[in-house]
Amino acid sequence: MSSAEHTAPGLVQRSMVTAGPLLIIGSGLLGASLGLCLSSAGVEVYLEDTSPTSLRLAEDIGAGRSFEGENPATIRFVIVATPPDVADICVVDALRRFPNAVVTDVASVKEAVLADVLAAAVGEDAELATRYVGSHPMAGRERSGPGAADADLFYGRPWVIVPHENSAPETITAVRSLATDIGAFPLEMDARSHDEAVAMVSHVPQLISSLLAARLELAPTNALGLAGQGLRDTTRIAASDPRLWTAILAGNAGPVAQVLRAFQKDLDDLVTHLEKAAELGPLQGGSVGAVNRVIEAGNRGVSRIPGKHGGAPRRYAALEVLIPDQPGALGRLFTELGEINVNIEDLSLEHSAGQHVGLARIMVDPSRVQEAEVELEKRGWRLITNAIDNA
Amino acid sequence: MSSAEHTAPGLVQRSMVTAGPLLIIGSGLLGASLGLCLSSAGVEVYLEDTSPTSLRLAEDIGAGRSFEGENPATIRFVIVATPPDVADICVVDALRRFPNAVVTDVASVKEAVLADVLAAAVGEDAELATRYVGSHPMAGRERSGPGAADADLFYGRPWVIVPHENSAPETITAVRSLATDIGAFPLEMDARSHDEAVAMVSHVPQLISSLLAARLELAPTNALGLAGQGLRDTTRIAASDPRLWTAILAGNAGPVAQVLRAFQKDLDDLVTHLEKAAELGPLQGGSVGAVNRVIEAGNRGVSRIPGKHGGAPRRYAALEVLIPDQPGALGRLFTELGEINVNIEDLSLEHSAGQHVGLARIMVDPSRVQEAEVELEKRGWRLITNAIDNA
Repeated sequence: MSSAEHTAPGLVQRSMVTAGPLLIIGSGLLGASLGLCLSSAGVEVYLEDTSPTSLRLAEDIGAGRSFEGENPATIRFVIVATPPDVADICVVDALRRFPNAVVTDVASVKEAVLADVLAAAVGEDAELATRYVGSHPMAGRERSGPGAADADLFYGRPWVIVPHENSAPETITAVRSLATDIGAFPLEMDARSHDEAVAMVSHVPQLISSLLAARLELAPTNALGLAGQGLRDTTRIAASDPRLWTAILAGNAGPVAQVLRAFQKDLDDLVTHLEKAAELGPLQGGSVGAVNRVIEAGNRGVSRIPGKHGGAPRRYAALEVLIPDQPGALGRLFTELGEINVNIEDLSLEHSAGQHVGLARIMVDPSRVQEAEVELEKRGWRLITNAIDNA
Repeated sequence: MSSAEHTAPGLVQRSMVTAGPLLIIGSGLLGASLGLCLSSAGVEVYLEDTSPTSLRLAEDIGAGRSFEGENPATIRFVIVATPPDVADICVVDALRRFPNAVVTDVASVKEAVLADVLAAAVGEDAELATRYVGSHPMAGRERSGPGAADADLFYGRPWVIVPHENSAPETITAVRSLATDIGAFPLEMDARSHDEAVAMVSHVPQLISSLLAARLELAPTNALGLAGQGLRDTTRIAASDPRLWTAILAGNAGPVAQVLRAFQKDLDDLVTHLEKAAELGPLQGGSVGAVNRVIEAGNRGVSRIPGKHGGAPRRYAALEVLIPDQPGALGRLFTELGEINVNIEDLSLEHSAGQHVGLARIMVDPSRVQEAEVELEKRGWRLITNAIDNA
């Protein structure tokens, strides 16, 4: 396990704004990772968990110490990091229990939590809502338990901050500083826009990948032997944790269903035309036009995904290099790319069943590709002709 | 452009069985790549193309020479590498024009071509079918034109051979030898099984990826800023060439529609449950069970995709290492992995909008992961805690 003291070359050291005492409710992967990171930077961190085992484990790895017996009035910041299906209850409860604290949560669906806070913050409780701003750190993949915790989990990731009409400016600032302190970069969105955004870029891709992979359950083994990188890429996230994803998706049913409905409409149209073509012949039944529409719409959609560093999508050149199956072969390749000063913007490895050689697809600056090709071939590498491609 | 003389360390040199004169009909990417490879190995290669420009370009890059004015009786092998929607006509025509030749084609849909050959091979033409065996080289991605040709395009790829009830044993052997000579590895399947297999592992994933990416066309820009590796992976192939894919998919409408029908049924069920949940609340309407079924079926499906070298799927350990955004940083990492003798089974690079650090996800043998972690952290790399994951 790494800690905040480790700094790889080129990574910037942190300076903290967030001040404790701070309480993390829920000591799973996210809570314990936050605790580790904040503790190691000198913030006083307390932990709470309904599971005594999880709590003890989180304490043992250095994520903070148990809050039991402490004075609630001293707490200045509460992070609710429980499973998403109880986040709303825990946030409202925390706002009442800790009258001097800013409260945020890290649940991946935001509208339901906010609605419960606003419903509770009425009459003499109106001030509760001023101290709450929800957030959602976009940590790459989520796994469970404090044992998987890591202080660097949020490093370099987007962290969505969700202000609302009743949140106090100092609450927004505090949550934003937390994100920055953790090494993430904060983005502001309202709750509905956030939930629709994650439905689009995360929840629906998860379900579609799962539905696609589900088709492989009964596929003949020799068919699976023809699987290439396309199938591997489209189904990679189908290996995700069912329990976690069920809670996330059921909690964002509205926005997810809305995107799926539009998908479904396109799919129905496509199937109708393909079935006509199967009956009448490939050039009949309008299937050519229907298929072409789908592929072209996909071209336009994928070109909108931003490239590295949040810039507009840009076109990289692909270097495709055959890699012998030996330890160190890739290292040799990357060392040689470094020697000729070529930065790798993206890369993927491809290999098919039964073969003893792989293909590395390396995205590089188009202005560097020709020299890279010449230099690599000089050094004995076999290249597949380069092509411009979207990163 | 590389040629067959280049041999990276660890790659085996070829020895050819295929003898010419050989004619390639269609000098696009596949035809010109085959011509380059066979010509450079000393086979006498002729070319034909309806486009004089394509033909001349293929000649100029060394893929072979024009067949015009030569004697058809001398040709011993014909490879039809035309666009898929004319492959059937060209194959039947080639069987008639070249009475002493074995004929194959490289179209990615096989049943339609075979049906046309069998329909033509009746009465005194019965022998035509004995000289035909279809094939399908599973070349990674397809781009058009002889300018993109590469002698190594098929190296290490599966090459499906499609014998039928009337194919002569020597025809099968000749096509199989061609695949081996090219550096591919041959697999035998009947035409229907082949078409169903590629519908499942290639054509349907293409359409689903395109349908998913099409949803991004109208997505707000800030939503796309939250895109992570999941969305990038599931939509990567949505950038594919519409013209080529339209021809392929319209030609395999039956098997594709069959897989999509089953997908559609699962999707309809899911949408119904999610819409009930959106109306009644997250724990109502059976949505929890419906979502869970989809994710779990996806888990089972994706686990069936074979791992490297055609073995059963195996579990690798993932090393996740933060990579500063500098030329040479990845090279340094891979060099150091080579020094501690860790082979990289698979890898991917991940980065989000706006961040200045990437995450390399490296799949390695689980027995090597602990030592790799210790050694890398010693050398100053920041690691996210490793996890077992399907390769």
